[in-house]
Amino acid sequence: MVNRFELAKQELVATPALVVDLPTVERNLQRLHSYADQHGLKVRPHTKTHKSRRFARMQVEHGSVGLTVAKLGEAEVMGQESSDILIAYPAIDPDRRRRVAELARTHTVRVAVDSQYGVSVLAAAAEAAGTTIGILVDLNIGFPRTGVPTPAAALELAQQVVQAGKHLRLDGILIYPGHVWAPADQQEEILTQIDQKLAETIELWQAHGLSVDIVSGGSTPTAFQSHFVRSLTEIRPGTNIFNDMNTVRAGFCELDDCAAAVIATVVSTAVPGKCVIDAGNKTLTSDRNVLQPDSGHGHVVEYPQARIIRLSEEHGEIDFSGCDQTPQLGERVTIIPNHICPCVNLQDQFYLQTPEGIEKLNVDARGLLA
Amino acid sequence: MVNRFELAKQELVATPALVVDLPTVERNLQRLHSYADQHGLKVRPHTKTHKSRRFARMQVEHGSVGLTVAKLGEAEVMGQESSDILIAYPAIDPDRRRRVAELARTHTVRVAVDSQYGVSVLAAAAEAAGTTIGILVDLNIGFPRTGVPTPAAALELAQQVVQAGKHLRLDGILIYPGHVWAPADQQEEILTQIDQKLAETIELWQAHGLSVDIVSGGSTPTAFQSHFVRSLTEIRPGTNIFNDMNTVRAGFCELDDCAAAVIATVVSTAVPGKCVIDAGNKTLTSDRNVLQPDSGHGHVVEYPQARIIRLSEEHGEIDFSGCDQTPQLGERVTIIPNHICPCVNLQDQFYLQTPEGIEKLNVDARGLLA
Repeated sequence: MVNRFELAKQELVATPALVVDLPTVERNLQRLHSYADQHGLKVRPHTKTHKSRRFARMQVEHGSVGLTVAKLGEAEVMGQESSDILIAYPAIDPDRRRRVAELARTHTVRVAVDSQYGVSVLAAAAEAAGTTIGILVDLNIGFPRTGVPTPAAALELAQQVVQAGKHLRLDGILIYPGHVWAPADQQEEILTQIDQKLAETIELWQAHGLSVDIVSGGSTPTAFQSHFVRSLTEIRPGTNIFNDMNTVRAGFCELDDCAAAVIATVVSTAVPGKCVIDAGNKTLTSDRNVLQPDSGHGHVVEYPQARIIRLSEEHGEIDFSGCDQTPQLGERVTIIPNHICPCVNLQDQFYLQTPEGIEKLNVDARGLLA
Repeated sequence: MVNRFELAKQELVATPALVVDLPTVERNLQRLHSYADQHGLKVRPHTKTHKSRRFARMQVEHGSVGLTVAKLGEAEVMGQESSDILIAYPAIDPDRRRRVAELARTHTVRVAVDSQYGVSVLAAAAEAAGTTIGILVDLNIGFPRTGVPTPAAALELAQQVVQAGKHLRLDGILIYPGHVWAPADQQEEILTQIDQKLAETIELWQAHGLSVDIVSGGSTPTAFQSHFVRSLTEIRPGTNIFNDMNTVRAGFCELDDCAAAVIATVVSTAVPGKCVIDAGNKTLTSDRNVLQPDSGHGHVVEYPQARIIRLSEEHGEIDFSGCDQTPQLGERVTIIPNHICPCVNLQDQFYLQTPEGIEKLNVDARGLLA
């Protein structure tokens, strides 16, 4: 197998370092937008994966209608690349709601809300700022994290949005199918159930004179099966731009679709049968693989049979007992992480690999927790 | 129970935020230095826990003989607070060994080494810089990560250090008892075995005319049992300055000895029996508790029966089914993390709580992976 990260592996001054291969990013974006176009779906990608203005700009250039974020710090950064920002998060505490209302001065801003409290405080914040905030009612469709439980509860919250007055605008419904990690060919049944719950909710809203302009769904695992949820108007995949061992091991993409990798150096081989690299959980995170938690903390491209068995903060211990060869001290290896989003958040920069060479890029929205 | 983080909880503008209570830090440092003084041990604390010049300065003021780091970026930051830096890491790749040799121009610098390759390349780097690097031979005493396996192998490496010439200085032996997570009263047997292996190694070195000036050991779990390893001259605890739920649940300290906590806000209560806070694994890390992996992702001070059952990047889901009361939307809660070191690495700043008020402090060495 050709290691697409070979150039960066040769040229990097210091390790560990996160490399992103630009041609692979381009291919991933093209594939997503081609699917979305085919099914009449808009794309509003979640930028939590890359946290970077440069990749956000690429997404907009590929036809994304806006950008999705979780926290307000991210909203303010991504607002520099798009005038249309969805905060797919209950941004209802005093600091966030004030910043949402401020951002709405210059941007189309929408917030996912799942409480009457949220509706009230966002309305008050928008009134204080003299702005208008779009509201998507967060409907729980099976992933029990946020979201109102039933079509009736969604209707009640939607009516409260309308009653809250002119500083809120009822825009539609948001879902997050975070529980759908089945292989693509087994998703149809779960997605059809989601489709039914959404259809029931929309029918109820319409029967009460409420329109549903946006039905926002999707995630990377469900991205290419979004057409099974017929009422969706848009999808919000995040990981898709880079992919990782979670999406590979779940069968959503191939190893060659992984655009991001950590280059690390072997710094110890003193313990027989293993070696230690200079990337621990401060570089790769402690996240286990979602579907194969015992598969190790990432994939070693040069030694596919190797297993990253334990991470300390700065040490990654790799078991080479299944390999014909073992790396030498000082050798560099290429790791595809289990979960690329929090891994990106641990780096101050990307090393962008382009046909012209290696370029350094800031992770602009890294660590913006508020 | 009084919540020692109440002041910050009231006064913080935005959440999630990492608060450190200064009086608790002072007490933790006093306790450690009092134990060390009593047993004639020097303290060379590992600064990976706090990654901050201010706390490093406090450690030096309490009598630490130097500071310990893993990576070179940390060494360069902590070198501003102490002239004596131990790099307890195989810093042998081209970038690190060059920076080690440079730092040795102005500082007493020591590196833990476990390979002949490491000895050779560090000698060459020091020669190129015209400096001298101190070497501690890393001896594996049961935690199979780094370290030469036997007293004989340690002797062989020590002899290679001497033979490498005047740019290396053989300073002694380093151990890391990373496997010792037994309760304090059960550690004696394991530590006595370590004591024997060290005694054998030292005897062998001395029989070959090599002196052992430094025997560097310790970690937070073993810190207060260090006297069972009689040959130690110094200890390197890290977590001890702040403590966390790992040290609490292992019985190494009390909840009241935890100096650092994350203040978070409840942002959703839509799913019955649980609530969602605005701190996920981007704030708390995914690290499970070492001894009680099913105890949840940290301790909720205000609701001791609550359990943080799942973390997404920006959502922390808390199960309140065991509690008499549940928090309200918008309420703030105080979380003691499982593992404070990587949690600190996720924050750009601390909010330092002092008798005078809240002070903002940079995490100076955050994210310095190289």
